[in-house]
Amino acid sequence: MTNSEIKHISSLKDKKARAEAGEFVVESEKLVVEAISSGFEVKLICYTGDNVDRRIVSHPAAVAVDRKTMDRISLLASPSPALAVIAMPAVPQSDVAALAADPKALCLALDGVRDPGNMGTIIRIADWFGIDAVLASKDSVELYNPKTIQSTMGSIFRKKVIYCDLVEAANLFAAAGAPVYGTFLDGDDIYSSKLEGHALVIMGSESFGIRDYLSPSVSGRLFIPPYPRGGSGCESLNVSAAAAVVCSEFRRFLLT
Amino acid sequence: MTNSEIKHISSLKDKKARAEAGEFVVESEKLVVEAISSGFEVKLICYTGDNVDRRIVSHPAAVAVDRKTMDRISLLASPSPALAVIAMPAVPQSDVAALAADPKALCLALDGVRDPGNMGTIIRIADWFGIDAVLASKDSVELYNPKTIQSTMGSIFRKKVIYCDLVEAANLFAAAGAPVYGTFLDGDDIYSSKLEGHALVIMGSESFGIRDYLSPSVSGRLFIPPYPRGGSGCESLNVSAAAAVVCSEFRRFLLT
Repeated sequence: MTNSEIKHISSLKDKKARAEAGEFVVESEKLVVEAISSGFEVKLICYTGDNVDRRIVSHPAAVAVDRKTMDRISLLASPSPALAVIAMPAVPQSDVAALAADPKALCLALDGVRDPGNMGTIIRIADWFGIDAVLASKDSVELYNPKTIQSTMGSIFRKKVIYCDLVEAANLFAAAGAPVYGTFLDGDDIYSSKLEGHALVIMGSESFGIRDYLSPSVSGRLFIPPYPRGGSGCESLNVSAAAAVVCSEFRRFLLT
Repeated sequence: MTNSEIKHISSLKDKKARAEAGEFVVESEKLVVEAISSGFEVKLICYTGDNVDRRIVSHPAAVAVDRKTMDRISLLASPSPALAVIAMPAVPQSDVAALAADPKALCLALDGVRDPGNMGTIIRIADWFGIDAVLASKDSVELYNPKTIQSTMGSIFRKKVIYCDLVEAANLFAAAGAPVYGTFLDGDDIYSSKLEGHALVIMGSESFGIRDYLSPSVSGRLFIPPYPRGGSGCESLNVSAAAAVVCSEFRRFLLT
């Protein structure tokens, strides 16, 4: 490893540098192994120590580094034995139209979700429940933020995430005859709602919910009822907790 | 504010100091207002600036401080205008027996949950769904960790959390004739399970699930099915996402 390679990897801690390079970093043996077996382009792997998974060691882009180097390039307080630099895949905006036209596609849309842990957890939820893609407004937190990646626990390599204009996305689903759902505190009880399997489901941000520019695009307003009905003083669920319940309800509708 | 008062508040960033003082810190106007209106003993409030909520300013324990002092005592990168020191409430272990004996009590139990964000989010979920109390194994993350408190978004003041021996807790529920549920990857489909409203529901840790010492205490093994059945490569849900779905299912059972 040259000094300039070390500097390049370290620079990817910064969002702007990631965007310019078109590259991001994943850390931990588990994530590096998932990167290798995904369709993503693995540009460089650094590993340290003798007990690293052989799928990592035998990869053509793998380089053994000493612990001191790993400490320099890692973002983690306790660096793990493996780190990979991955090329950001191209995600064509036309994929949104294709999803809207697919009669089996169920997509989530995130309107301004700012917390990387929430974003990553929602991608993992979408993966578990077989959601076809996650759309995100352009002001949502960056997908390649290290905390987002860590929270996906590998789902970043399986689940398509598309940053796009959510009003346009909602229009495409509506034009295809698919409902556009959204969660609102004055929505209809999700437990007794008829939920279509071909749909777009919008989740609002941590602070503002679904914002005014987007709410006219929602044709089905949903609500997760508190218990007892009327509530107990708790104002809302965290957006990733709400996404888990909403995805579960859509899939239960098809499975039971 | 004397220098020793400032030092005392700053010391509460440390878990051991919190335990010795029996005090913890909450930050943000919202949380300080919730602390005031809760039954918790508010020992000191510091606020800065002229636009602070008058319920804070008029509190007998409130002290105006300058921004420099707030920067010193705050744990946040961008300190908010209000911070309060709160006495940890006494939570008698006998409360577990009382909950187990209450025919309407539904409790969550967390077996070794380590992430403060998960702990806080689960307390907020428990609040939304009217779960009567959250039990936690003694090796679970500390309730008064600042990240836990922040993630509860105020639910810490409404929801009882009891650190206890979970085998003993499960025995108490079983002795009262209440099922002890747990989530397992080989459990029964939660959507088609009969869910009792008087029960203990155990959630496992991020890394180990429900551990071997505790799994014999579980009488009802539950599973949140992925979609499609058989899954897509995603190994599991985050524990707080799973807790959201599980709580939603127990309450849906009663509401519909």
